[in-house]
Amino acid sequence: MPVNLTPPVAAQLLPVAGVSLGVTEANIKREKRKDLLVMQLCAGARVAGVFTKNRFCAAPVTVAREHLAQPDGIRALVVNTGNANAGTGEQGLQDARTTCAALAGLLDCKASQILPFSTGVIMEPLPVGKIAAGLPGCIANMRAGNWHDAAYAIMTTDIVAKAISRQVTINGVTITITGIAKGSGMIHPNMATMLGYIATDAAIAQPLLQRMVSEAANCSFNCITVDGDTSTNDALMLIATGQATLPEIREAGSAEFATLQAAVSEVAIWLAQAIVRDGEGATKFITVRIEGGRDEAECKQIGYAIARSPLVKTAFFASDPNLGRILAAIGYAGIDDLDVAALKLYLDDVLVAENGGRAASYCEEDGQRVMRQNDITIRVALGRGAANATVWTCDFSYDYVKINASYRS
Amino acid sequence: MPVNLTPPVAAQLLPVAGVSLGVTEANIKREKRKDLLVMQLCAGARVAGVFTKNRFCAAPVTVAREHLAQPDGIRALVVNTGNANAGTGEQGLQDARTTCAALAGLLDCKASQILPFSTGVIMEPLPVGKIAAGLPGCIANMRAGNWHDAAYAIMTTDIVAKAISRQVTINGVTITITGIAKGSGMIHPNMATMLGYIATDAAIAQPLLQRMVSEAANCSFNCITVDGDTSTNDALMLIATGQATLPEIREAGSAEFATLQAAVSEVAIWLAQAIVRDGEGATKFITVRIEGGRDEAECKQIGYAIARSPLVKTAFFASDPNLGRILAAIGYAGIDDLDVAALKLYLDDVLVAENGGRAASYCEEDGQRVMRQNDITIRVALGRGAANATVWTCDFSYDYVKINASYRS
Repeated sequence: MPVNLTPPVAAQLLPVAGVSLGVTEANIKREKRKDLLVMQLCAGARVAGVFTKNRFCAAPVTVAREHLAQPDGIRALVVNTGNANAGTGEQGLQDARTTCAALAGLLDCKASQILPFSTGVIMEPLPVGKIAAGLPGCIANMRAGNWHDAAYAIMTTDIVAKAISRQVTINGVTITITGIAKGSGMIHPNMATMLGYIATDAAIAQPLLQRMVSEAANCSFNCITVDGDTSTNDALMLIATGQATLPEIREAGSAEFATLQAAVSEVAIWLAQAIVRDGEGATKFITVRIEGGRDEAECKQIGYAIARSPLVKTAFFASDPNLGRILAAIGYAGIDDLDVAALKLYLDDVLVAENGGRAASYCEEDGQRVMRQNDITIRVALGRGAANATVWTCDFSYDYVKINASYRS
Repeated sequence: MPVNLTPPVAAQLLPVAGVSLGVTEANIKREKRKDLLVMQLCAGARVAGVFTKNRFCAAPVTVAREHLAQPDGIRALVVNTGNANAGTGEQGLQDARTTCAALAGLLDCKASQILPFSTGVIMEPLPVGKIAAGLPGCIANMRAGNWHDAAYAIMTTDIVAKAISRQVTINGVTITITGIAKGSGMIHPNMATMLGYIATDAAIAQPLLQRMVSEAANCSFNCITVDGDTSTNDALMLIATGQATLPEIREAGSAEFATLQAAVSEVAIWLAQAIVRDGEGATKFITVRIEGGRDEAECKQIGYAIARSPLVKTAFFASDPNLGRILAAIGYAGIDDLDVAALKLYLDDVLVAENGGRAASYCEEDGQRVMRQNDITIRVALGRGAANATVWTCDFSYDYVKINASYRS
């Protein structure tokens, strides 16, 4: 069950002027579930995004990149669940383009003004006929207040839908940011393995929008892992509709940019943590904080070695303070000149290891007490520099195996 | 349950002249099980080894390295199970040295002529008093024919003991090679996560012996993974007693060296595969063969990405040909210029994917037929060079979680 994560409340999700959303049941993989989403954008809205680095990237990722490079402006995004359209070769590219063309015909724009996204099973043909047949239903359902339904429509193995809104005031103008994401398994950077859509009514120059989404991804979706598998379909999109009365943000050094960046990053971090809290089979949410490294890269390297270790993750599932497994993971993280005698390992506030072994002050009862919690922080103080990094992960349970052994059935 | 792996038959394990083995119940972690092994070597025997690259290497690994560098010649190896003496700091080093000194006193040699090894739980103090008290029992039990008991005495979560003998004839002289190994979880290079001891009665010059054990490790224990966790205690030792009548092997280019290397590597490969067949919770043995790469390193990189993917491994557990997960793993293996449209994916003899997607000839029934087998080969033809590599792994089941969630209880 998800760890300290409750379903979104529809009334708490704020519309973003310039964005309308419509969902429908297109019967892509199963019947009787909303599995197709169209997000329509006002004229002049800008979109920037970051995508999976998987070489086997899905056809919609390739097409979305192409369309983002066009000058005409994006007018809609279309997202289907139930099929990833990945590992589908030339036919997959055609199917993604057919989807865009079908929606463009309904919205009276060019196919290149549509961004396609897919999530679900890999290496099966996209049922493009069902998607095309479902699009009119999405159009008929189109409303600005549909974020709640949209969050549900993009789920795959997620148990809880993930959606959040924030507002900030910039120069007296209220700016709204609303985001949704899906993801539960196949979660690992780069990119973190999910689909995420964040929209704001602020106006931002295109290069700054790209910078803002990259920074937001780096401090959120690029800091999580569930199973170490990087998906073929990851994408995080940031939409700026420019419908608020605030003048366009054009300077990366401005207070306006910094305030909006902080708010967008906060939304991205909340969504990324929600994905881990709803990680497949998760019963614990684990923050891995590495401090005192020479640079952020080595801190992340050690953080990920701990966060993806099946032995560490099963020990947390069992609430068993078998914490030597954390030391082993630190040791194989690949930092060749790491002085293991110089580091300290903490579990929340409990000093577990120092001087290359168990701390004299450590007692099993203290470790056991922390291990029983749902939210736990592993902190490693390396003592060799000033850099830090944080990675979020979950434990590894019977249910992870169950979910993934029966995913297609 | 182990995959196509049967327990060793005592009568099929051949003594190696110059090696005696004694085991006892030292009650290190549990009562009523043999948990302490001493291997005594004749004067003049040579020993070479390779060790874990984990920075948190166990105290006995550090001490064994020191002792191997001494000129006096190794006279005995001592192995305890039930406690890894890893993450134990300065006290752990003292405990490993105390163990060596205690055995040296009984065997009338220097402590530096003893190699210590430990396996079991990490970050708990070694019960050195119990080990010292158990050593006389090992001495009293010392026999050349004790390889079978020795294989059992070094087990931790292993279900089946791992031991094998081979004989080769070199210049008319019969040379015997017998090896034992333990390992089941925390299995990943470098070194593969286990203890292994291989002995031969041939005589080999020391530098050639080191070369032989390194080559044997590289084609065996450095080609396996169970869970991607590299242990703190891995060691593979090769012992050459020189008791056979064959003259000392001194030339790496000689036919004698090549013949013995092949036989030693064969024993190492058998033991390494046995570890995977007995991998924690394993129900399938999977050979991952990568062909047509630019160099061996990129082939291994792709092979390991597939072999350690929890999503691939759970699909094999379920006998579900959800083979797109293999494409995803290939895609995130980190080969930046990989042309995914140029590769072919096979499951045994079945062509699954080509041209970036599912092969036209592929049908689910063929994939399903292969997935139901216990022994399966995943073959990827990269089509970009002449290099190859093979990696062995197992599937990922409920029992892996069960075993590792309850390891200490």
